Amino acid sequence: MDFRAEALKKHYEWNGKIEITPRVRVSDRESLSLAYTPGVAEPCMAIHADVEKSYELTRRSNLVAVVTDGTAVLGLGDIGPEAGMPVMEGKCVLFKEFADVDAFPLCIRSKDVDEIVRTVYLLSGSFGGVNLEDIAAPRCFEIERRLQELCDIPVFHDDQHGTAVVVAAALLNALKVTGRRMEDITCVINGAGSAGCAIARHLLRFGVGELILVDLQGTLVEGRKGMNQAQEALSRMTNRRRLIGGLREAMTGADVFIGVSAPNIVTAEMIGCMKRDPIVFPMANPTPEILPEEAFRGGAKVVGTGRSDYDNQINNVLAFPGIFRGALDVRAREINEEMKLAASYAIASLVSESELSPAYILPHAFDKRVGRAVARAVAEAAMRSGVARVGLSGESVR
Amino acid sequence: MDFRAEALKKHYEWNGKIEITPRVRVSDRESLSLAYTPGVAEPCMAIHADVEKSYELTRRSNLVAVVTDGTAVLGLGDIGPEAGMPVMEGKCVLFKEFADVDAFPLCIRSKDVDEIVRTVYLLSGSFGGVNLEDIAAPRCFEIERRLQELCDIPVFHDDQHGTAVVVAAALLNALKVTGRRMEDITCVINGAGSAGCAIARHLLRFGVGELILVDLQGTLVEGRKGMNQAQEALSRMTNRRRLIGGLREAMTGADVFIGVSAPNIVTAEMIGCMKRDPIVFPMANPTPEILPEEAFRGGAKVVGTGRSDYDNQINNVLAFPGIFRGALDVRAREINEEMKLAASYAIASLVSESELSPAYILPHAFDKRVGRAVARAVAEAAMRSGVARVGLSGESVR
Repeated sequence: MDFRAEALKKHYEWNGKIEITPRVRVSDRESLSLAYTPGVAEPCMAIHADVEKSYELTRRSNLVAVVTDGTAVLGLGDIGPEAGMPVMEGKCVLFKEFADVDAFPLCIRSKDVDEIVRTVYLLSGSFGGVNLEDIAAPRCFEIERRLQELCDIPVFHDDQHGTAVVVAAALLNALKVTGRRMEDITCVINGAGSAGCAIARHLLRFGVGELILVDLQGTLVEGRKGMNQAQEALSRMTNRRRLIGGLREAMTGADVFIGVSAPNIVTAEMIGCMKRDPIVFPMANPTPEILPEEAFRGGAKVVGTGRSDYDNQINNVLAFPGIFRGALDVRAREINEEMKLAASYAIASLVSESELSPAYILPHAFDKRVGRAVARAVAEAAMRSGVARVGLSGESVR
Repeated sequence: MDFRAEALKKHYEWNGKIEITPRVRVSDRESLSLAYTPGVAEPCMAIHADVEKSYELTRRSNLVAVVTDGTAVLGLGDIGPEAGMPVMEGKCVLFKEFADVDAFPLCIRSKDVDEIVRTVYLLSGSFGGVNLEDIAAPRCFEIERRLQELCDIPVFHDDQHGTAVVVAAALLNALKVTGRRMEDITCVINGAGSAGCAIARHLLRFGVGELILVDLQGTLVEGRKGMNQAQEALSRMTNRRRLIGGLREAMTGADVFIGVSAPNIVTAEMIGCMKRDPIVFPMANPTPEILPEEAFRGGAKVVGTGRSDYDNQINNVLAFPGIFRGALDVRAREINEEMKLAASYAIASLVSESELSPAYILPHAFDKRVGRAVARAVAEAAMRSGVARVGLSGESVR
């Protein structure tokens, strides 16, 4: 059986990849009357008196909603909320497996920003965090911004920030391998959707030297027509040479190529136009912008893709479980820039100087240290930056 | 430690009574690529092509949302959505323990009917059913009605229908014990909120002889001022003698008293005014309208309460797990009257003629046969009444 047929067959066998399990046995009158009526009135009234107690008396402190409208599912596009559910369930499995976070999938039957924002806000008292997933750009920007303003729990669009965190971690180590400094490099990002824009913003915070975003209309340059708000803002912070041209022109002389775009649009010859020993992260999934073997043929020194069958898999699973684990552990109000920076550094730090090589710039997806290290770094960054409500031992922070 | 302190302490220890558990191990590259990208694209596209496949390829077929706005939590009143969560989590534990239904709690931060309806509707593609819980009357009536019109999955307000189903089961067997027939009895229901009205409507379908509802303003009688829509409708179908008066007048000469009202408002002397060998179900929780020992002193023949420390506990847990199990098993579009009638008969039938006695009219809450028997009866009723989408062996019904 081929792989695709096998995946479908497995999904029929599983009949759902998550289930809801009791943490308490209700097997006799006594346990029933403690966990349910009449005993349950006590925690209810304790939360009524102090809503913060919901973090101790219900599952909220460990619970994340994985929310989609089904408009940008994987590379499949707008397939609808029900059809997005297998991805959301998969995400929930990863949350639990990689960081012991309880995550529950909610697929919303609306593409209206106001309605999505209102729906998630109305439910936000039931959760400790919200992971937005596979929502099309530019709607995803506004949904996240408005939700984070309304809610006192973290709202995090993983397609943007999770990707950005892992790309930055990979870049930090790739720079070491190739003897470069962040402030000296020119970095081209192909694809100016939600992931591309988020990577750009994140790298700017690391002090990247020059950044050029490219989309189907060519390089992003201040004043260009047809840009959305996020792109306009970025056009003012990037491409300082005001280079006007296509991907080829942007790549010429660049140190780093990051692709979050479409399969097979980069050639070995284009890699050959970059600086010596370039860093190439073609992350289109499942078929990258250029296959690693081709990139190496063009002279690439370090190559990372989204795929598990090549070295250097740039996989969000390195980031989001630990980021939410850390945020939940200190009841962070949001996941801010400091926390995302800390997550990138934490991931990068798990590859020691002695292990570091062009073929090993990121820890493996199943490296058990990752979730814990990221969680710790993110929790500490939350405390430093004043968005934690409790410390790591649970004491209240004022 | 007293019981209330013990219940609170346990809730702190539990830190949530449910969690989200993977049904599939993701422990290596292969399992990751089957359960998540790239393999997960296959079930997504299968659902995109036929949304009914969401029942087979995701957890939807076994998943119920337990939804509240926190406005009528237990007897505690409007304590807010977060404070209602311990009850909702408890309910989810019972769903799983008693009928292997996965249930997830959603507490909505709104008291606006339109907004609650819209929120639940927008999420309904993620679930196979909706259990409304602890929503104040009369809002709960409209929310349930409108949601059931919008959704193609069952929407069931347990405080109404679950209670009605179990009360009817108890009454069926109490009538046998006391040698009465349904069509001959006069039945008084004290309390005309959501539970009282639902019990009344359900008993009317069983062909109860005479029914009198009583609230704080006295008997419900056609044309009385200050009734809501549900009460007005019932006033036209009940109290055919047009008795105007209080609870005492209504109870005089009645066969059955059903209380869903307030503690300690019925006296032994009032029981003494009923017909000989009356049936008394004082279900106010935790303190009933009259304690069983007092009711017996007044001459009651059969007494049932909501409490587990007396005989004949009239407990919703006998109904809702099996009702949803049965509805999910045949993907019922709704939970209709036929299904609720079938559930009452199924519960009553589990006490055999030889076992039946004034102290044993209902199976015990932990009787393992109950969930299965109710599920079977409900599924068959769904098929008979044309609301099932698949048969019990999963074949499509046209």
